[in-house]
Amino acid sequence: MPEIRHNIITRQWVIISTERARRPDQFASEEGLRVELPPRVATCPFCPGNEAKTPGEVFRDPKDGAWRVRVVPNKFAALAADGQLVRMNVGIKRTISGVGRHEVIVETPEHNQTLARMSEDEVERVLRAYLARFHAVLADERVEQVTLFKNHGPAAGTSLEHPHSQLIGTPVIPSDVLDRLTTALQFYDDAGQCLFCTTLAEELDEGTRVVVEGQHFVAFVPFAALSPFHLWIFPKRHSASFGNIEPAELTDLARVLRALLAKLHKGLRDPDYNLTIRTAPKESDRVKYYHWYVSVVPRVTKMAGFELGSGMFINTALPEESARFLRGIAAD
Amino acid sequence: MPEIRHNIITRQWVIISTERARRPDQFASEEGLRVELPPRVATCPFCPGNEAKTPGEVFRDPKDGAWRVRVVPNKFAALAADGQLVRMNVGIKRTISGVGRHEVIVETPEHNQTLARMSEDEVERVLRAYLARFHAVLADERVEQVTLFKNHGPAAGTSLEHPHSQLIGTPVIPSDVLDRLTTALQFYDDAGQCLFCTTLAEELDEGTRVVVEGQHFVAFVPFAALSPFHLWIFPKRHSASFGNIEPAELTDLARVLRALLAKLHKGLRDPDYNLTIRTAPKESDRVKYYHWYVSVVPRVTKMAGFELGSGMFINTALPEESARFLRGIAAD
Repeated sequence: MPEIRHNIITRQWVIISTERARRPDQFASEEGLRVELPPRVATCPFCPGNEAKTPGEVFRDPKDGAWRVRVVPNKFAALAADGQLVRMNVGIKRTISGVGRHEVIVETPEHNQTLARMSEDEVERVLRAYLARFHAVLADERVEQVTLFKNHGPAAGTSLEHPHSQLIGTPVIPSDVLDRLTTALQFYDDAGQCLFCTTLAEELDEGTRVVVEGQHFVAFVPFAALSPFHLWIFPKRHSASFGNIEPAELTDLARVLRALLAKLHKGLRDPDYNLTIRTAPKESDRVKYYHWYVSVVPRVTKMAGFELGSGMFINTALPEESARFLRGIAAD
Repeated sequence: MPEIRHNIITRQWVIISTERARRPDQFASEEGLRVELPPRVATCPFCPGNEAKTPGEVFRDPKDGAWRVRVVPNKFAALAADGQLVRMNVGIKRTISGVGRHEVIVETPEHNQTLARMSEDEVERVLRAYLARFHAVLADERVEQVTLFKNHGPAAGTSLEHPHSQLIGTPVIPSDVLDRLTTALQFYDDAGQCLFCTTLAEELDEGTRVVVEGQHFVAFVPFAALSPFHLWIFPKRHSASFGNIEPAELTDLARVLRALLAKLHKGLRDPDYNLTIRTAPKESDRVKYYHWYVSVVPRVTKMAGFELGSGMFINTALPEESARFLRGIAAD
């Protein structure tokens, strides 16, 4: 019989569909691997030599010589970098001027590279760029929330092949963030402890869903994973915001993230995925009840009408089996 | 400058991205039309002659002779039709046995037909099947909520071409429904009136986003549409549940829905879409603060990391322009 599990952090019920379940390796991509792409594409705006095709650089590492990571404003920004924050209410309709920041983190000069195949040092360099821009954009007084995310592959919604992540600084708190804050605050009020710390303690105690454990971070498949190979990476130290990460923690996150992505790359043949850093809004970055984390969602199945229409999910993979499968795959 | 609009019913902020905006006709599908499929496929479990390939029929119209609409249990049901509802809590983990109902509404015997090209009578026949099964499944005492939905085309998550809808009866209230109920109750408490009635009054007053107005139903693009051509169909009479629909209303809904889908079919070349009936849970089917409605979401763009990671949406179509475009397309 199927099981309906409760995702206590998102408050979503998930049908773990044992009747429809597939073996872990049946979720492997049938597409060609990105590593088969050319290392440089003359028309790619993110390839070296084409720097003039992007808006002016806001970050570069290393500062001098050939760059390894660079950050530029998004040429087709969803929000305007200039302009006043204006709120307007007409009847029950609320509108805010679309101001904020939208940047692109170019992760490597190599067109056919991927985080999953980079060295730990290279992944850490990308994360350092995330952190630098996170602080810089959050300093904009119009910005309430910074969302860092990566769309890997067409099924994940990317239109450009060259490895890149994005950052959007919004003048409002996105509803998902608000919902998680509310849920976490209620749990804190009820139990006197952080919901995420409690979840992590149970996961480490049980062990069946843990995929990679580092010194400071743990990657695991959530008990009520919304989709096959849905993964969370939690920091062990309680902290509400990615912005509070310590240098040694950043090094460990690079190690855990690289290992996790390498396992996905090998085990599922370079699946498309979305990665997000879920962090507290600016005004709540030190609270005891919220805990930042990284979410990785391989796009190996499609969201259909039931998911869109109810917010309930049907997962055709057993979380414990997905975790065991990934644990069994070498990370290097 | 882009605009950030608030969807007061889902509480989601939507970036209406004027900089990235495309003309309405640029969202048209490039796929072949489904009408070019054969009218009957020998291996299709939903084509006439193959009735034995599906589990036993639970509904048929007409009762005798050749059927026009039939309903069968889903062969790969997400929930088990038999079994006890059992709740289990271990630590902070909650699990419920996966019992409930999962049915398929076969909308027509013709493999290459679509709701958009059916007659009003035929669409009404499908809606009558929806209603009959809605009541039948809600009568199951384990079921708290019935979700009726349709996945049209592969981008909408369907794996079978033959026109069909689905019904899932769950033993829990899906989180999206719970969130909308909470939001609506707060608005009712604050304003003393139904949020949906208020929204509909403003839409009719303004008129710029209305696409089809019938005697009992209004189809419009929401002020903060989450994606291009996102559409809502609201009943004019306040009612919390689809189950309370009157016969004359059902006839009008068939008329409005058919017209709307015909406009999408012609204007966007038979786009893939999801359709959902958003209705109150069983225990709240007469409340003053909630109002059922139909949601139609053409899958003309992909949800990517920002949407998944924040619950904020970027819509590259201006709702008023989408509505004007659809108004301009003949419905027959």
